[in-house]
Amino acid sequence: MTKEQLFKNITRKKSFLCVGLDTDLNLIPKHLLKLEDPIFEFNKRIIDATKDLCVAYKPNTAFYETLGAEGWISLEKTINYINDTYKDIFTIADAKRGDIGNTSKMYAKAFFEKLNFDSITVSPYMGEDSVMPFLEYKNKWVILLALTSNTGAQDLQINSKFKIENSKFLYEGVLETSQKWGNPDNMMYVVGATKAEILSDIRKIVPDNFLLVPGIGAQGGSLQDVAKYGMNKQCGLLVNSSRGIIYAGAGEDFADKAGEEALKLQKEMKDLLEKYL
Amino acid sequence: MTKEQLFKNITRKKSFLCVGLDTDLNLIPKHLLKLEDPIFEFNKRIIDATKDLCVAYKPNTAFYETLGAEGWISLEKTINYINDTYKDIFTIADAKRGDIGNTSKMYAKAFFEKLNFDSITVSPYMGEDSVMPFLEYKNKWVILLALTSNTGAQDLQINSKFKIENSKFLYEGVLETSQKWGNPDNMMYVVGATKAEILSDIRKIVPDNFLLVPGIGAQGGSLQDVAKYGMNKQCGLLVNSSRGIIYAGAGEDFADKAGEEALKLQKEMKDLLEKYL
Repeated sequence: MTKEQLFKNITRKKSFLCVGLDTDLNLIPKHLLKLEDPIFEFNKRIIDATKDLCVAYKPNTAFYETLGAEGWISLEKTINYINDTYKDIFTIADAKRGDIGNTSKMYAKAFFEKLNFDSITVSPYMGEDSVMPFLEYKNKWVILLALTSNTGAQDLQINSKFKIENSKFLYEGVLETSQKWGNPDNMMYVVGATKAEILSDIRKIVPDNFLLVPGIGAQGGSLQDVAKYGMNKQCGLLVNSSRGIIYAGAGEDFADKAGEEALKLQKEMKDLLEKYL
Repeated sequence: MTKEQLFKNITRKKSFLCVGLDTDLNLIPKHLLKLEDPIFEFNKRIIDATKDLCVAYKPNTAFYETLGAEGWISLEKTINYINDTYKDIFTIADAKRGDIGNTSKMYAKAFFEKLNFDSITVSPYMGEDSVMPFLEYKNKWVILLALTSNTGAQDLQINSKFKIENSKFLYEGVLETSQKWGNPDNMMYVVGATKAEILSDIRKIVPDNFLLVPGIGAQGGSLQDVAKYGMNKQCGLLVNSSRGIIYAGAGEDFADKAGEEALKLQKEMKDLLEKYL
């Protein structure tokens, strides 16, 4: 998917919501467990109930790998279902991969060919050649970890002991250096919402890149602040919510409940798009 | 496996060799392709031919994921074969994972429970809570990326523009900070062999941790220098070779050829252990 197509979907759906499919056998409604592939059935129903309210889905690979090959099959069925049924959805493999060039090539093949994802989250630690193989695919995206939403972000990314040249934080260095690797048409950044004001600093470095913002809801970030400090002329934001939406209900009506939560966020996003775009 | 058990295996086998199972359908002998699971069959024969010459196997997950669920099954069969057949082998999931705490927990479950690996390679970028869930398993190991063997290591890890407090390189900061997360009994480090002299600086920071050293052979590092600068009283080294061993032959006798290459390295390691231990 191109940046223009994504922006078009955002304006048409009046939403920049990404739904995180962190699907956990221990948390999905019990009545699904008797089905042959409970993980896929859960995802399918969540997707059907939220597809008009969001522009992206983001399965986190950890939740699938924990089930071994079976989990990998559920992931494959999920991405195929999205791609076959809803053409206007941006898909994110939240895989946080990255390895030496030759090996990253294999990951790119895994996520962009074998599984037909639009994008993948990638760790910057191993540098340019670990990222480039993903960028060689046309209309596919790298979403590079910059400032994550967990407490561990303070250990390296935004730690004064890890300030680099010109007294910049490490995550700022990552944003700057990686501008040479990709461009706003093939690279996004993961930027946590836990300190939304920082988004205005980030926008000075990467004015045009889309930002994938986790940390709304369960992790405590404010959607209002994210939009205020982070939105650009093409929206430039994909705001993710996982648990707050997919586990909104635990009964037979779990998909309806998920739809209701997604609708709340979509309405808020509609207002924010009108306010700032 | 404990550090003591690993050291015992090293002294008994007179080897600190790790064989990287970067198994690629396009590179394995053609006659295997008619079998039901060529990847597993290849691994099994390589393992049988090299098991007495090495102390560890390291499948890189990228090579398996690129085949989807089928690849995951081959990986599962490989780790089960090693664990069931050869009890004294240290196993490394070269997965380079790491995510927010809750999600890293799922990765730990995937690699330490579902697949019974002894260790996993982890990226440090997301900080302590991304690493801790792996360290909570008894007798399991985190192998943290510090200084990798690819050219991209020069982009962040060992780049003068990314020097941190006290004019240290980023990888040095990672080595120091992570000492608070784990200890020499549950944490190793990935340190590339491309500049072996650096190992003596690294040994000043982490005298007792095992180092997983890739970059021997195809990537150009010298085993002599790695031992000279990196060995400690308990050896403290696992030196990896992947392509140089597993693709030594392409015919029916590929496993014998792999054994021959592994033997060359083992003999060199035997001499180095006698010299430095």
